[in-house]
Amino acid sequence: MGVEERLSELESRLRRAEDHLEILNLLNSYGPLVDSGSAIEASALWVEGGGYAFSGGVGDGSRIRAPEALASVYEAEWHQELIHTGSAHLTATPAIRIVGDEAEAVAYSFVVRREDERWFLLRAAINHWTLRRSVDGWRIIDRVNRLLDGSPASHELMRTILSVVSAE
Amino acid sequence: MGVEERLSELESRLRRAEDHLEILNLLNSYGPLVDSGSAIEASALWVEGGGYAFSGGVGDGSRIRAPEALASVYEAEWHQELIHTGSAHLTATPAIRIVGDEAEAVAYSFVVRREDERWFLLRAAINHWTLRRSVDGWRIIDRVNRLLDGSPASHELMRTILSVVSAE
Amino acid sequence: MGVEERLSELESRLRRAEDHLEILNLLNSYGPLVDSGSAIEASALWVEGGGYAFSGGVGDGSRIRAPEALASVYEAEWHQELIHTGSAHLTATPAIRIVGDEAEAVAYSFVVRREDERWFLLRAAINHWTLRRSVDGWRIIDRVNRLLDGSPASHELMRTILSVVSAE
Repeated sequence: MGVEERLSELESRLRRAEDHLEILNLLNSYGPLVDSGSAIEASALWVEGGGYAFSGGVGDGSRIRAPEALASVYEAEWHQELIHTGSAHLTATPAIRIVGDEAEAVAYSFVVRREDERWFLLRAAINHWTLRRSVDGWRIIDRVNRLLDGSPASHELMRTILSVVSAE
Repeated sequence: MGVEERLSELESRLRRAEDHLEILNLLNSYGPLVDSGSAIEASALWVEGGGYAFSGGVGDGSRIRAPEALASVYEAEWHQELIHTGSAHLTATPAIRIVGDEAEAVAYSFVVRREDERWFLLRAAINHWTLRRSVDGWRIIDRVNRLLDGSPASHELMRTILSVVSAE
Repeated sequence: MGVEERLSELESRLRRAEDHLEILNLLNSYGPLVDSGSAIEASALWVEGGGYAFSGGVGDGSRIRAPEALASVYEAEWHQELIHTGSAHLTATPAIRIVGDEAEAVAYSFVVRREDERWFLLRAAINHWTLRRSVDGWRIIDRVNRLLDGSPASHELMRTILSVVSAE
């Protein structure tokens, strides 16, 4: 390979590594935003028209649209009560696959809530995200979240990990 | 340094960063695979002949060989009962050291299990992995896992972190 | 851009990606060090004169200086009792922003402790780190940690995530 080709390959490979790290930052900023009541900023992690579908608790599995409808979830009374009790929306390290300007990610997530002198896992779930590079950086198109209740639907969502890691 | 040398150095440094990200993906795909009952795919994270030694629960600390013997662990009745109740085999972000085509990693791991409307930590452990680059990408050679029971053996395994981060 | 310029840009971008991965390693080595009683090595994650301020438990929020005063925290009787019972100081994946030779990071952290056949969350907290590149690699200048008790101070610390991810 000539110098020009090697430079081009380095540039595109490096951009993919940077994308991976930026998506790690993006998905790990969700928790501190929703737990501090930063509803607008949390919803802005999605593209306009993006969605979040979660089951369990107040969610019925239907897609909630960003930014307005999603922001109102974080402004709701039950969420405000949770974050004033003390909570962590914890996202585990996601496995991430990037293809050009699109990406997908899979990870567990947990909602941790204070009760007296301890913290307990109120929710445990598996998540699949699709993401897109925008002019403002990476943003979420869709996040699907299923409680770890042993159901076939939860196991099916876990198995999306296979397409995420198979490309490597 | 001349152009040729700078390109070569960039290529080898970038490959190490990519290796780091690929190993993050590999180790974080373990949970969704075993929790969804994907026994064959989970065992394929190891090289053929690779091993997993864990203590506590059904493990006596002896090395279980991949892929056949290890897959049968995930197909056993107790594991099936666990994953149909609702579980997360959570791997914390590992510290990783890469030297050429070999790597080692250290991280905590947890087994989270549903009980009624909550999830509890059934296991908490420290892990040390050795890995190797194969034609199919990075694979595990050995994983050693010790319960966090305050024992000297568990503390000794934690201290392997020193060789992982000292190279930097 | 000419070859020289492209090489220089690749070199500085790659260094930032490597910095990100090295800081991940650094912050994730904290747990195994303090949980194994490696007090000196844990304190050496800070620059000399660096500090750790935490609230809750034995902490009153004041800054404890590294290395001596901080090492003595990990050598104290209550810490020794904790690690001989079985514990994990778990650092969640941090969001990281690097600007030249300085960096900041934000992440949740948890202290997990064994009780009979289970493990419980004794502490859950939000953390903000400032870091600096030294001749020995990245080191912590300051770590501030606040319990997740629903207080305005804990929410304010969470909102530092906005400056970490806004630069991208």
